[in-house]
Amino acid sequence: MSRVLVDGREEGAVDPADRGLQYGDGLFETLAVVEGRTRFFDWHCERLEAGAARLRLPVPGRELLREEIRRVAPNGRSVVKILVTRGSGGRGYRPPAEARPRRVVAASEWPRRDPACWTLGVRVRWCRTRLGRNPALAGIKHLNRLEQVLARAEWQDESIAEGLMMDDRGEVIGGTQANLFLAIGGGFVTPALAACGVAGVMRRAFLSWAAGQGIPVSERAMTAAEAATAEGLLLTNALIGAWPVRELDGHALRLPRCAVEFNAWLETQ
Amino acid sequence: MSRVLVDGREEGAVDPADRGLQYGDGLFETLAVVEGRTRFFDWHCERLEAGAARLRLPVPGRELLREEIRRVAPNGRSVVKILVTRGSGGRGYRPPAEARPRRVVAASEWPRRDPACWTLGVRVRWCRTRLGRNPALAGIKHLNRLEQVLARAEWQDESIAEGLMMDDRGEVIGGTQANLFLAIGGGFVTPALAACGVAGVMRRAFLSWAAGQGIPVSERAMTAAEAATAEGLLLTNALIGAWPVRELDGHALRLPRCAVEFNAWLETQ
Repeated sequence: MSRVLVDGREEGAVDPADRGLQYGDGLFETLAVVEGRTRFFDWHCERLEAGAARLRLPVPGRELLREEIRRVAPNGRSVVKILVTRGSGGRGYRPPAEARPRRVVAASEWPRRDPACWTLGVRVRWCRTRLGRNPALAGIKHLNRLEQVLARAEWQDESIAEGLMMDDRGEVIGGTQANLFLAIGGGFVTPALAACGVAGVMRRAFLSWAAGQGIPVSERAMTAAEAATAEGLLLTNALIGAWPVRELDGHALRLPRCAVEFNAWLETQ
Repeated sequence: MSRVLVDGREEGAVDPADRGLQYGDGLFETLAVVEGRTRFFDWHCERLEAGAARLRLPVPGRELLREEIRRVAPNGRSVVKILVTRGSGGRGYRPPAEARPRRVVAASEWPRRDPACWTLGVRVRWCRTRLGRNPALAGIKHLNRLEQVLARAEWQDESIAEGLMMDDRGEVIGGTQANLFLAIGGGFVTPALAACGVAGVMRRAFLSWAAGQGIPVSERAMTAAEAATAEGLLLTNALIGAWPVRELDGHALRLPRCAVEFNAWLETQ
């Protein structure tokens, strides 16, 4: 991380007793910042606030976050990560009655990617690691991410861009760090995320864009067989926008044409 | 925490980029230390090492941990928490090829408890928060503990000592911070922990003690109805030893007699 603020202080370090470290008791957001402007800032804040409501965690105000993002990423293109924990204290798992949340706002370099990812598509694989189902934690971007770490550790092949994950019942949830859309019959289907997974801000952007284009998208449960036999697959996240998938575990896929149009629209946002 | 060492240094703070904070990518142990001697030190190390093997995380050597425990808790009765993370680095969820793990060894005061907990038993309740099932993470004491935090936040009544949790299929797993034993037909039954839960060191101690006493204990799946109608219930963890349960959600229970004998044996360990 090139520039980090801990509770607004530069060169900050984190108390080892912080509940984010002790229990993963907190939330995060990963944002794309271009020339000091955060893409979908309000939607990121809405998800952060929804997660905070779910965890009953006080959350920093939007103006404060906006100011700290400006401090760590004043110009150029950066990745900014906001992390909010329940702070230090409490006895064991029990949260303190009056939590004093801690925030980390950190900028890092924009990752270099082969431009062909957007035009020719990416290669993906299935992960063996499954996701446990828990509606209480589904959809929000909390700090308990060991399942994703184990899944991402399954492959070293740099030509594989992402891994797809199922939950413990075999339902498809999405990528380790991306949401998934299946092209089916002129529209799209995306996992419902009622029991696990993260409801990505770029997923929301794609849903919103598709609605504006009159492209039907439904959210529902789906099996691995359905994903493997879809006409095409798209991956979305805050940094990549949408990537078409050209190959799933060696099986070639047609590229959904609308990925190009969506990414072009995204550049205007 | 009264005394803390981060990678052996006093007054240490933690890098905000630590993967323990970012993803819960690590493990912990909570140990009872009495006059510089750690109860079941080797068993705690074995669990830490088993967790590290599961997460493919390098783990500190036992002699180093023993020395740092001595530094933070040289005398008296203390709770020592050891936390080991994958350290800083890696890109996103992907673990770095050569992880440099970070360790936190911290002592805190021995918690004051009403002595009646051990003799007259404790009151417990059912939690609404469920546990997601994930065999890849079951049994080990990893840092993804939001489910336990949410469960423990369900009650404020100080006279309730613990909450019992089920997984998303309705199988009983144990307390938020204790393992559970059901007294049934002269022996005990305890959840198998194949899909979730933590295999506690005091659970292991109770299993070992019971075997020595000729008390049959089986590990298997169980329902809430079975737990609610058991002849008696016991809770175990590294700090409490074994607590008999006198009341489950207002329903009175008989105290398993052997709790007293087990706790007396424990004092000699």
